Amino acid sequence: MDAAPVTATLLLSCPDQKGLVAAVSNFVFENDGNIIHADQHTDLEEHYFLQRVEWELDGFAVARDDLRDAFRPIADRFSMDWSVRFSDEIQRIAIFVSQQAHCLYDVLARWKMGELRADIPLVVSNHPDLAEVAGDFGIAFHHLPVTAETKSQQEAATIGLLEKHRVDLIVLARYMQILTADFVRRYPNRIINIHHSFLPAFAGARPYYQAHERGVKVIGATAHYVTADLDAGPIIEQDVVRVSHSDAVPDLVGKGRDLEKVVLARAVRLHLDSRVLVYGNKTVVFD
Amino acid sequence: MDAAPVTATLLLSCPDQKGLVAAVSNFVFENDGNIIHADQHTDLEEHYFLQRVEWELDGFAVARDDLRDAFRPIADRFSMDWSVRFSDEIQRIAIFVSQQAHCLYDVLARWKMGELRADIPLVVSNHPDLAEVAGDFGIAFHHLPVTAETKSQQEAATIGLLEKHRVDLIVLARYMQILTADFVRRYPNRIINIHHSFLPAFAGARPYYQAHERGVKVIGATAHYVTADLDAGPIIEQDVVRVSHSDAVPDLVGKGRDLEKVVLARAVRLHLDSRVLVYGNKTVVFD
Amino acid sequence: MDAAPVTATLLLSCPDQKGLVAAVSNFVFENDGNIIHADQHTDLEEHYFLQRVEWELDGFAVARDDLRDAFRPIADRFSMDWSVRFSDEIQRIAIFVSQQAHCLYDVLARWKMGELRADIPLVVSNHPDLAEVAGDFGIAFHHLPVTAETKSQQEAATIGLLEKHRVDLIVLARYMQILTADFVRRYPNRIINIHHSFLPAFAGARPYYQAHERGVKVIGATAHYVTADLDAGPIIEQDVVRVSHSDAVPDLVGKGRDLEKVVLARAVRLHLDSRVLVYGNKTVVFD
Amino acid sequence: MDAAPVTATLLLSCPDQKGLVAAVSNFVFENDGNIIHADQHTDLEEHYFLQRVEWELDGFAVARDDLRDAFRPIADRFSMDWSVRFSDEIQRIAIFVSQQAHCLYDVLARWKMGELRADIPLVVSNHPDLAEVAGDFGIAFHHLPVTAETKSQQEAATIGLLEKHRVDLIVLARYMQILTADFVRRYPNRIINIHHSFLPAFAGARPYYQAHERGVKVIGATAHYVTADLDAGPIIEQDVVRVSHSDAVPDLVGKGRDLEKVVLARAVRLHLDSRVLVYGNKTVVFD
Repeated sequence: MDAAPVTATLLLSCPDQKGLVAAVSNFVFENDGNIIHADQHTDLEEHYFLQRVEWELDGFAVARDDLRDAFRPIADRFSMDWSVRFSDEIQRIAIFVSQQAHCLYDVLARWKMGELRADIPLVVSNHPDLAEVAGDFGIAFHHLPVTAETKSQQEAATIGLLEKHRVDLIVLARYMQILTADFVRRYPNRIINIHHSFLPAFAGARPYYQAHERGVKVIGATAHYVTADLDAGPIIEQDVVRVSHSDAVPDLVGKGRDLEKVVLARAVRLHLDSRVLVYGNKTVVFD
Repeated sequence: MDAAPVTATLLLSCPDQKGLVAAVSNFVFENDGNIIHADQHTDLEEHYFLQRVEWELDGFAVARDDLRDAFRPIADRFSMDWSVRFSDEIQRIAIFVSQQAHCLYDVLARWKMGELRADIPLVVSNHPDLAEVAGDFGIAFHHLPVTAETKSQQEAATIGLLEKHRVDLIVLARYMQILTADFVRRYPNRIINIHHSFLPAFAGARPYYQAHERGVKVIGATAHYVTADLDAGPIIEQDVVRVSHSDAVPDLVGKGRDLEKVVLARAVRLHLDSRVLVYGNKTVVFD
Repeated sequence: MDAAPVTATLLLSCPDQKGLVAAVSNFVFENDGNIIHADQHTDLEEHYFLQRVEWELDGFAVARDDLRDAFRPIADRFSMDWSVRFSDEIQRIAIFVSQQAHCLYDVLARWKMGELRADIPLVVSNHPDLAEVAGDFGIAFHHLPVTAETKSQQEAATIGLLEKHRVDLIVLARYMQILTADFVRRYPNRIINIHHSFLPAFAGARPYYQAHERGVKVIGATAHYVTADLDAGPIIEQDVVRVSHSDAVPDLVGKGRDLEKVVLARAVRLHLDSRVLVYGNKTVVFD
Repeated sequence: MDAAPVTATLLLSCPDQKGLVAAVSNFVFENDGNIIHADQHTDLEEHYFLQRVEWELDGFAVARDDLRDAFRPIADRFSMDWSVRFSDEIQRIAIFVSQQAHCLYDVLARWKMGELRADIPLVVSNHPDLAEVAGDFGIAFHHLPVTAETKSQQEAATIGLLEKHRVDLIVLARYMQILTADFVRRYPNRIINIHHSFLPAFAGARPYYQAHERGVKVIGATAHYVTADLDAGPIIEQDVVRVSHSDAVPDLVGKGRDLEKVVLARAVRLHLDSRVLVYGNKTVVFD
């Protein structure tokens, strides 16, 4: 693929007010910007407005470094939550895993093929099993075992690594440990987990076993941002697959793996492309 | 469509044992039967065997009225739960509704077009609203209002109607009343409900509202046999549809209606075709 | 449901240019409009821009009857294709059928329940079979038989009826006749057909038979605007369902019917809500 | 997972006759076999019967090496096409690729994780690009470039490699060359291709481009056995994903990749588990 032109992406949300769309589009237009994507959503019950606008930097009248200052007066006028991202800023991902390899293989293969535009400086695991997989892709692997007693030290060591590597996004690729509220608070809407059920069904442990016990005819997977409440954070993406009585638990596990990989990858890509806005405990996904 | 040949369908289940399949297939073969469908499932964990065999009656050496007696020795030898159904026995359905019309319209239209081979002698409702719909299709409508105080009388009156009309199957087509355990016990695996979520998520009241609150990216519908535990009976069929942040609750309701109709109709048809076996709290569906 | 507030919906498309979004949003803002939905799409290859903007009329500074004149200068400046619709204008639908009842029942039940906001003054058919269905819903039924020899007279008579009833939209609910190019030309992007395959696979006659012959593992349905090229018009909506070797042609027909109904209904609703724009031989669907 | 017990799987097909099921089940029963899976299908139009029976070898009265001889009289009596496979026979796969890595990565990761029980002695490619991927997984990579002039020599060299490595199954993991009829004839129902459309739509070159031109709302992928007719062999598995006007061709390619991987992997696994029977130009898939 060609080098795509560098773009700026503005994400914003605020109470709904007349003139919002006009103000933002005038800002881009008057500075000679060429909008290539614009999406917006108004929550008519909450009277809340959310928008994503992406335009080409080439030819834009405001210099890249001045862009945030130039937009700030508009943001302040409408009391916006907002951020600006440039498409050539490469985000840095840490992948957390335990013993299951399928999501790790999938993320790393996508990264190696250029499908995920990001740097992956490290893989962190509470088990040693997947060191070789990380190694085959040339990624540093950090084995940080954890017990109930060592949890706080292990998290402190992990945070040290994340800060050293200036990590922007943590991907829990079937990491079978619960992060503490303290840890989670450091990375708000920047930790993506894949849970192997269609939440809120079958939260917690052994969802495929639970699904088999209940006799469901579809199983699912859910990618969500991690919050202090287990499996209850804002959902980014979900998908399902049909199953039948002939699927024993290992069959559900096998079918589920294919879902988990795809759902996690979609969520990571949506996040990297700045297509996900969180409000309340929900997401708006501009795909 | 042509008149299909009359068939016998044997449904059986029992602890798994060697020689089961041979015994059943020999019974059909030695009596000159022509098997047109045969399905079986072995639950390898529970060591439990379930089978559905359908063969043409025409040319079968055992007379229709003697068939059950002829098979009984085999059934006894293997301690089977079993039943035999003939394809020309038309089952009788009572439809229970409240105020929402979409499932009622859908079931009645399928019946009128010959898609559901059954008789529908009556519609029962705790509200008067849908009398006209039933009337347009020429079906008797019984308005039996219910309050906490009159529940037992209303159920007694309902049972009187069901017995008078020799009803085989009760279809809860968005009936917004909880049936008592006493009522349910009279119709084991013969009451089909449509619940407007992918159970076990969002059991109970207002599932679309719950789904919207949780911010899910798929919604579903579940058809299940009614047991004494609310929304917890054996699942016959489920399906889902994608939704997004742009779907407010009324949008979920609208998308969900299309799911509910199709999922309920599939479940009713599977039941009428003797394709559903219940074991434990699950179903085996031979479709 | 409450009476929704009356809205204006502007649909527009034109070559992509800077300032387009600003011009439209300023028009609404400066006249004190409250935008409740706005969607846009830029085709980056064709450099073509399409937009749908919906705002509340209540409080809007331009009177309803002056709205088109007020917007025209902007439309002209950007060489827009455009139209304005008001949400309280009820469109008038003619349904064309042949002998299959399922889509007709489905559309009429939705209409009766208020799910489709439209008037349905007439059903037209080349066969008499479905007169009773139309009658049960209180809709006039016109039986206009057609042969190769009488095709032009039949179409002339049909057009007479459509004009008399001021029909805005024609829904081919499994109408098994090919309309002439002359007829089609009178109703550009105003005739919706349901084809019982996932086009472009299995265009033409007997798609379920073709699908069975080919041994596909999914079947589909396609709703599209009718053009002079058979089954080749702009696709509005498609969906599919899994099938297997155990599905004979009648099973495919049965599963397909459920798809056809839902896909057709979605397309009709999208059209009535002014959510479909046609450009080239494709649609942009703002749902 | 535990070592599963060794099983024998009998695949058979023949004209439908009375006594078939009894004969096969008696064979297993009288030799003290424990059936763990049995599936059958009768094509009522073609009067053709297909069956898959799997039982445990442990305790079976016929020695493994004598099994085929013991069954032959039954097979001959009913004029069966038949084969027997033992679950501990590991099949040998050659993967053919060109320049796209996603299917290769996916198959190799599944193999490495033990999800695909097979040996993969070699990867063959007409381009050098993916040598490193194969190498990372420790698989020999053979670069065999091909032009119109060298096609027959290249195929001869390829066949030499396949024979040397005693390859049972060829997986075309986005191999962008058409195999000659001569080559295909050597591996009947033993070459699986992944085509990036829901066949028969968009056969041939550039299916995502064709899909974009046609404006479809779903795209698909098809895994099929390769025959001499391009993209026309028996379909093993298909799946689809929704797309919209906002998906440009590269978006379709990206979404399609996820389909291709999963659909190809399912087909390979079904084949390895002896769950696919071909008859006419169709498959029966016992999953």
